[in-house]
Amino acid sequence: MHEREGSAVNGKGSLHTEYMDRQGRLQEVMRTNGIDGFLVNHNVDLFYFNGSMQTGYLFVPAEGTSLFIVRRSITRAREESAAEVEELGSLRTLRDRLAQRYPGIFAPGQEALLATELDVLPVQQFQRLEAAFGGVKWKDGSLLVKELRMIKSPAEIDWIRKAAVVIDRTLEAAISGIREGMSELELMTIIERENRLQGHLGLMRMRAYNSELITGCVAAGASAAEPTYFDGPAGGRGLSSASPQSASTRVIGRNEPILIDIGCCIDGYVIDQTRIAVIGRLPGHLQRAYEVSERILQEAEAMLKPGTIAEHLYLQSLDTAAAEGLADHYMGFAGDQVKFLGHGIGLEIDEFPVLAKGFKYPLQPGMVIAIEPKFTFPGEGVVGIENTYVITETGFEKLTVSREGILAI
Amino acid sequence: MHEREGSAVNGKGSLHTEYMDRQGRLQEVMRTNGIDGFLVNHNVDLFYFNGSMQTGYLFVPAEGTSLFIVRRSITRAREESAAEVEELGSLRTLRDRLAQRYPGIFAPGQEALLATELDVLPVQQFQRLEAAFGGVKWKDGSLLVKELRMIKSPAEIDWIRKAAVVIDRTLEAAISGIREGMSELELMTIIERENRLQGHLGLMRMRAYNSELITGCVAAGASAAEPTYFDGPAGGRGLSSASPQSASTRVIGRNEPILIDIGCCIDGYVIDQTRIAVIGRLPGHLQRAYEVSERILQEAEAMLKPGTIAEHLYLQSLDTAAAEGLADHYMGFAGDQVKFLGHGIGLEIDEFPVLAKGFKYPLQPGMVIAIEPKFTFPGEGVVGIENTYVITETGFEKLTVSREGILAI
Repeated sequence: MHEREGSAVNGKGSLHTEYMDRQGRLQEVMRTNGIDGFLVNHNVDLFYFNGSMQTGYLFVPAEGTSLFIVRRSITRAREESAAEVEELGSLRTLRDRLAQRYPGIFAPGQEALLATELDVLPVQQFQRLEAAFGGVKWKDGSLLVKELRMIKSPAEIDWIRKAAVVIDRTLEAAISGIREGMSELELMTIIERENRLQGHLGLMRMRAYNSELITGCVAAGASAAEPTYFDGPAGGRGLSSASPQSASTRVIGRNEPILIDIGCCIDGYVIDQTRIAVIGRLPGHLQRAYEVSERILQEAEAMLKPGTIAEHLYLQSLDTAAAEGLADHYMGFAGDQVKFLGHGIGLEIDEFPVLAKGFKYPLQPGMVIAIEPKFTFPGEGVVGIENTYVITETGFEKLTVSREGILAI
Repeated sequence: MHEREGSAVNGKGSLHTEYMDRQGRLQEVMRTNGIDGFLVNHNVDLFYFNGSMQTGYLFVPAEGTSLFIVRRSITRAREESAAEVEELGSLRTLRDRLAQRYPGIFAPGQEALLATELDVLPVQQFQRLEAAFGGVKWKDGSLLVKELRMIKSPAEIDWIRKAAVVIDRTLEAAISGIREGMSELELMTIIERENRLQGHLGLMRMRAYNSELITGCVAAGASAAEPTYFDGPAGGRGLSSASPQSASTRVIGRNEPILIDIGCCIDGYVIDQTRIAVIGRLPGHLQRAYEVSERILQEAEAMLKPGTIAEHLYLQSLDTAAAEGLADHYMGFAGDQVKFLGHGIGLEIDEFPVLAKGFKYPLQPGMVIAIEPKFTFPGEGVVGIENTYVITETGFEKLTVSREGILAI
């Protein structure tokens, strides 16, 4: 659990300092971009910059100290917030109260440039903000936030390390629990229970609109290969068209790949990893495709160092899949393929950088990336592997601690 | 699980007819409001109107047949969708393709009025839509959708009935599993496992921005009484400030109220109910407050019939709480109180009508409402009860099937 303000975190200073550092980094990029104030509004961003997810607005000025204006719960916000806390009252009074505290930004006759996260903020709420704030100009600050959050601090990497240990224990419990005749859903309940008992918060956050993730994708054979709307290489039949992904009630068979693509959320930080289990042994062509996925991962590892351009990792993997005659099976089956090899991960599962065409970020120390080469065979299953890595000054550290290879039951 | 197009659902006709009916009702209110086309975009609304949650846009014209334009997965959308399915390709081509199919709406020199769900659509995505659609005017259609979804069909009520049976079995498993020395989290894992094995989809959807719900609130004694950002009467310490609600690792004590405010999601439909358990017996003042909550619920039941104004249920409950000297404890403790008695429920937990001041909807047959009078005692716990009801022609039917009263262990 997150310690209160001022207490030590892994000997790396206090959390208060950590949040102040983050706000300071935001202020730097605000000044570079001519932004006068940032009204942070998204629950995950509130937590990132200020340590509290209570409902409210964190106002960060380009210079000076920030203010957390809270609707609910004030009591809890005062416990958690790094910034000073004030009660919101009515949204209509927000501008005037900020003007009182930050007269330089809201000076009469001057149009302040304010930023907020327009990638997640619903139109209706934005319209309310626009109505409440006369005489200001709004700018989309979401890219700035994503770029800041892309580089993890040592404390953040430690939380992801903890999540990696939790998910490894959960994987081992799942492997021990797999029985012939068991359904995908039954296997999923083992995983979810183990996760929860170790402190998994019960959700894995995604930032993208309409995106939902329920523990991951646990599915076997033909069921795992069913395509879905989910923006990932594996789909899963799911329990219902009301949530068409991941585990179904289908019974796990012999000699088919059991896809265990799972994560957990420890103190807000998520991990993502994939392993393949099998009762018996895989058919030769699936075994071979699995080996290609391991090779793609090794090739990616060889490129994991500061300076490598994010998209090059994906492009290289396409070449290898094609050279092995597996292009049509790579990251989904023809027509339902996703176009990335991996993704940044932290407080949300879909962070920057994405390892996909068009993502030109050079890798930098502190980036945490899940890399997940997979192959889909309709009617037969999905094979592949996924590890999470942090980029270091000289290369990478593998955060995932689970054993690799096909896990035979 | 949802059956495929054309198959029978509880003998009440086919799901295809159900979705066509829903689209037809939307078209009626569109015509009343002068809306030429509705671009349904939110995953839950897509499912409601068309039976499929695949990523895409459902275009519903004011007259004629709708079209589901899908990004991913086409394969799965073709299985699930009531409307005809086309592949999206690029968003930039969407307007031209709709113009081809609906020339009356997109006629040159004419400004079509299109609606979409601005209560959930992020600003960035709306800006992309605006850029892709020249020469149209946009209107917020979210209230229309909420009002349509407020009245449930017989098939929808059946799904909620199924969820009510599931959560009752889960409650009984929880009651059987409660042991002295067990933590709130351990109790939660029993609940989540039972839910999942019975087909709970693993999530409970909320529509409100930044809102998250993880199975419900399972918390005992002082921990349950801790206020949170969550828009409900009970909070819970939670496992971390990264998800400050519901179960914590606190050990459940003797003679303190164990709040079991839980739900599940079966085929998309959610149920919500609250019961209080105790190891031993409650102190007199908590027992008395519990009895007042039962009385408030009975008074609400007496008003549950077509024509009662939604807010009157809440106002009446305030009177009773005040008359019993419990005003400061009602629906949270002073300063952290929520201002409602209940909420509509269906595909999402926070549907219309809300039983709160300002909600003037007269009750109508088909409304499904969770009513949850609760009292908070800081340092001691939360007591109360919650049932879900459907309004009928003559009154109500209680959908919740769990036994009432304090459940002594």
